[in-house]
This record gives sequence, structure tokens and C-alpha cells, in this order.
Amino acid sequence: MSWRAVALGGGHGLHATLTALRRVTDDVTAVVTVADDGGSSGRLRRELGLLPPGDLRKAMVALAGADESSALWAALFQHRFGGTGALAGHAVGNLVLAGLLERLGDPVAVLEEAGRLLGVRGRVLPMCAEPLSIEADVTGLDEDADVVRRIRGQVAIATTPGRVQRIRLYGPGGPGEEPRGCPEAVQAVLDADVVLLGPGSWFTSVLPHLLVPELHDALVRTSARKVVVLNLVPQPGETAGFSPELHLDVLCAHAPALRVDAVIADVGAVPVPDRLSRAAAALGAAAHLAPIAVAGAPDRHDPAALALSIQRALAGPGDGTGGASSTTLQEDRATRGGEAPWR
Amino acid sequence: MSWRAVALGGGHGLHATLTALRRVTDDVTAVVTVADDGGSSGRLRRELGLLPPGDLRKAMVALAGADESSALWAALFQHRFGGTGALAGHAVGNLVLAGLLERLGDPVAVLEEAGRLLGVRGRVLPMCAEPLSIEADVTGLDEDADVVRRIRGQVAIATTPGRVQRIRLYGPGGPGEEPRGCPEAVQAVLDADVVLLGPGSWFTSVLPHLLVPELHDALVRTSARKVVVLNLVPQPGETAGFSPELHLDVLCAHAPALRVDAVIADVGAVPVPDRLSRAAAALGAAAHLAPIAVAGAPDRHDPAALALSIQRALAGPGDGTGGASSTTLQEDRATRGGEAPWR
Repeated sequence: MSWRAVALGGGHGLHATLTALRRVTDDVTAVVTVADDGGSSGRLRRELGLLPPGDLRKAMVALAGADESSALWAALFQHRFGGTGALAGHAVGNLVLAGLLERLGDPVAVLEEAGRLLGVRGRVLPMCAEPLSIEADVTGLDEDADVVRRIRGQVAIATTPGRVQRIRLYGPGGPGEEPRGCPEAVQAVLDADVVLLGPGSWFTSVLPHLLVPELHDALVRTSARKVVVLNLVPQPGETAGFSPELHLDVLCAHAPALRVDAVIADVGAVPVPDRLSRAAAALGAAAHLAPIAVAGAPDRHDPAALALSIQRALAGPGDGTGGASSTTLQEDRATRGGEAPWR
Repeated sequence: MSWRAVALGGGHGLHATLTALRRVTDDVTAVVTVADDGGSSGRLRRELGLLPPGDLRKAMVALAGADESSALWAALFQHRFGGTGALAGHAVGNLVLAGLLERLGDPVAVLEEAGRLLGVRGRVLPMCAEPLSIEADVTGLDEDADVVRRIRGQVAIATTPGRVQRIRLYGPGGPGEEPRGCPEAVQAVLDADVVLLGPGSWFTSVLPHLLVPELHDALVRTSARKVVVLNLVPQPGETAGFSPELHLDVLCAHAPALRVDAVIADVGAVPVPDRLSRAAAALGAAAHLAPIAVAGAPDRHDPAALALSIQRALAGPGDGTGGASSTTLQEDRATRGGEAPWR
């Protein structure tokens, strides 16, 4: 197949989607979150005022070529300095991307250059050309469980012991400044045949894309088929205790205008398929259940199984290709309204 | 021309020779000192226990390809992080080489890989595969000017206010451990048509090669023509106040068995040509004077002029190619013995 696929996300979740997608098409574009403030990326961002490179690096590595040279550079990009010194924990690829960002300025040009080095098949783009900040309304942090507190920063939100209710995204100017979508990423969504959202840290890697106005509008306008891939397990912290359908409800609450064509979930991660089906229907989508986790590692997507599942989801519900290993739930048009049931 | 040229040195001096050599032959091998303990290299060496990459990086950049991609990566290799944080002052290329050294181990393989990225024409090799230490006997540090003190480390020696008398080179085990020459570097010297020594920090970048037993022996045994290129100005610190001929005397004292074919010096940097001629003759060499400094920058070699001077020196004394801009001094066979007149 040669359809144009765009995967939105960040971190390990995006790595899984990209690895799966490259099995079924050569035309893959990753649109990557740039709100990270932790680890090697966060250190570089604070020290040099740059776009956090970590998620971009991981996406590049997922799309890297298989020849010896590409594999070596991809491994080097992932290599982290050890020891106890100033460099400990920095991934070499983050430092290379940081240097290129300082020299070239434009992250799209940076990723193109680095992409050549790693023999990237497809394209990696940032969702915005400038570093962003996430802010969340979180409950459950006080004795009065209904008190809403404002938590700022990807790490703080991803690890909060409270319950995330809603996030907001800011440009480098801070609260009040709308993020500006990377034009190439917006165009890629408009030109795509299929757009994947998720899996990944729901509030900090998946939903941020919907809060960039230009990207949101492109997702609403594009004629691409839109597929949401749910997580295998709730993330400790930001989505601890979240059911699969709650993930969809949250998505719906953050982008009420967004329609989705298919929702893919692991058959073992959905306790009540019927509920998921209804939540998917609220987004206009059919739910597709299949075993997509690695056998023996229920928190890791199996690229081959995920690829098959994406292909089947795109073939549409009721097309008979579901087979024994895939259950295509009929779309359930029961509307559920836009309220936020996870409150 | 397609003769096989090997340039021994480090730092800016080696950069000058390599830039000149690539104008006259495509087969250039740099054999680079690995005793640096200062700056970005020194920090990496101390933090990660690696071969100091800075001089290797500079040699690679001097031999980098001219196409757009090579030029970009060469510029990135030279790019230093700014700011006031943990990365400030680190050259990106040093970090890439450090990462490759951690992954691949063998510096020859590392330089080959990085060389492909920078489109290096020719080859860059370390003089030894392990980091070395330099120790110097230095006088003039006490009230009694004849007291000899032992100073250790490239930076300490290069900046000593005293007078360096002699250096010793140690392997990673410290005093008493002989450095082991990189076999590929040794072979390159044996296979060469011409070997260049200098310019550069005399005690810390040029002479160390002579103190690696295998390299020394190869330099003595090789049938290559050997050319010494003198510095344009004395280095503040290690060779402050050194005359051009004193540089040759020092070289002779550190490697008495070494014969040299030609000594190249800038015509403006040699106050008494006759003295230089005699010092060169003690090494078996003819002295070649020519204007090889950049006009208006008397401390920088002009690559084109240096290239021409090397070609003329190789053509031999009295071949009539000297022309108006080059004075080929007749070899003066007056022997001066091996004593160290700079004491």
C-alpha cells in the first residue's frame, strides 16, 4: 500500500504506531509533541532554550533505515552517556538535534538533515516550531477531592497523584499565548489518507495536538480517515484508573468538533466492549478489538498485530476481514452528549 | 599528484597542514595526538574516560568534503554550545565522537564512521588508541633558574611560564607505561611517500608522536620523504622565546635517530637564515624559506602558499623551481652534534 499516513503523538506510543505503520506504507509522517520538560530533553530546553528534542529523536529512530550505517547512527542517537558527570543521561541524538537547532534554527530543516543521516523513510515533524507548555486542571490533590488545582509542566502532569480533568497548551510566551501549528505538519494532516492518534500518555502526548488550533482545524477538515489507537494499560499518574472509554470521552471533551472513523483497542484491555463501542460511537467511530499486545508483555504493542489491526480498521466495519482474531463492533449511534463523565 | 601524504600533529597546526595537503594530493592521512586534557576534550576525557576527541575532530573538519551535507555536518562538529550550563563550551563533534567511542570502542572504526558523515577525503587516525599523558621537565619556575620541575598534563605544559626542556609520554597506566602506537597509523607512516611533522604546539602536539616507540621507529624506517614545517610565531608558554632553529634542536634531542629531508619555515619568521640552515643540516635536511603566512595575519599559515612550499621542498634543493618567492637554502652539512643548546 502507498497511502499517506500521519501519526500524531510522542514518546513510546508514537514509536509503536510508526513501527507498525512502516510495515504497511512507505509514506509515513510523524507529527510530534514538543511540550516535554523532563529528562535529557528538559535539561536541553532549560539550558539552551530549544525545542525539546527527545520525542522527535524517538520518532526518527522508529523510522530509521535498516542498512548498517542508518542502524549505527540510530543506535548512537539513542545512546545515553553514563557516569555521574554533567553529561550523564543525555542521549547523543538529543545533543545532535540541539546543535542542529542552534545552527539552523528551523526544526523542519533540522529534522530533514538528521533524517538523511538515519536513513529515515518518511518524515518527522514537530507539531509546533517552538517549545510549548502544558497546564492541567487536576482534582484529588486536596482533602476536598473537588478542589481543582492548576498543575504546570509535562512531567508534573504525567506523574500527578491527582486526577487530570482538562489540559491547556501554551506557546513559549506562557499562559494566554496560543501555540502556532507547524505549517508542514498542518499540511501533512490535510494531505493524508489516514491519520492516527495515540497510543501514548493521553494528556501529555496525545491530546496536545488537538489544542493547537491549526492542527485541530486540519484534523476536522481533512478527508483522511482518522483512527484512534488506545493504550494497553492506564498510565500510572495521568490516567491511573482510566477505562478505555474514558480515554475517548476525554478526547471528545477536548475536541468536540472532531469526528473519528475507527478506534483500535487491545481485546484484553477492554473489560466491557459494549461501553467502548458506545464511547467510540460518540466520536462517530467503530471500535475494533484485536490482540495487539506483545504476548507476555501486556504493556507493549506488537507492531505486526497493530499494523494488521490498522489495515482492518481502515477496511471498515463489517467488511468481513475481521476474522477470528479481530472483533469489529458495529457502530453504535447511541449518542452520549458532550458531558465529561470522568469528573 | 597522488602521492600518499601523512601529517602528524594536532590542533590548529595540523589543520593548516591538512588544508594545504589536500590541495596537492587526495591521499592524506592525519595522525593525531591524543594527550589533550583541556577544554571540551579534557572534560570528556575526565568524565567518560575516553580518548580526547578535540584534535581528531579538527583534523576531520580539515579534510571534510565540500558538498552541502558534508559542510553542514562539519560546521555542526565545530559548533560549540553556548550559555552558562553544563554543556557550555562542548563542541557537538566531540560529543558525537564520544558517543561513538562508547558504542564502538575502536577509535579507528569511530573515525571511519564519522568520516563518512563529513565526507572526509583521506583518513584521520589517532596516534594511539588510548588516552595519553604528557610530562615535562621545566626550568625557570624557581628562584634558582636551573631547578628542574616535573609538570604534568598538556594544558599545564602548554601554558607553563617556565622553560620546557624535555617531555615524556605515558600510556593510560601513567608514568612508566609506554604508549602503544595505533597500528594503522604506524602502517600509514611506513607506506607514505611524504610525512609532515608540524606546525603546532611543539612540545604538546608535534613532539609526542616521536615518543611513541612504534611511530618513532616507523618514522626512522619509512622511505617517505620527511618534511618539518616550523611555526610562524613562538607559542606563548611552551615555546615562548624559542628561535626557529631551537625548535629543530629540540626535535633532534627527542629523536636523535630521526633524519629529515626538508624544513619549511616562513621567510619572515627566520631572523638568521644561516642558523636555521645549520640546525636543519643537523637533521640531514635542507631549509626552505618562503612567505607562507597569511598577509596581514602573521600567525596563520596560508594554505595555498604552504602547499606550494611543500611541493617545492619535495622537488628538492637546487632544482631551480624556487623562483622569486621561495629561497631554497643549500643544505649545510656542518654537523652540530646532539647536545641541547636550549638548556
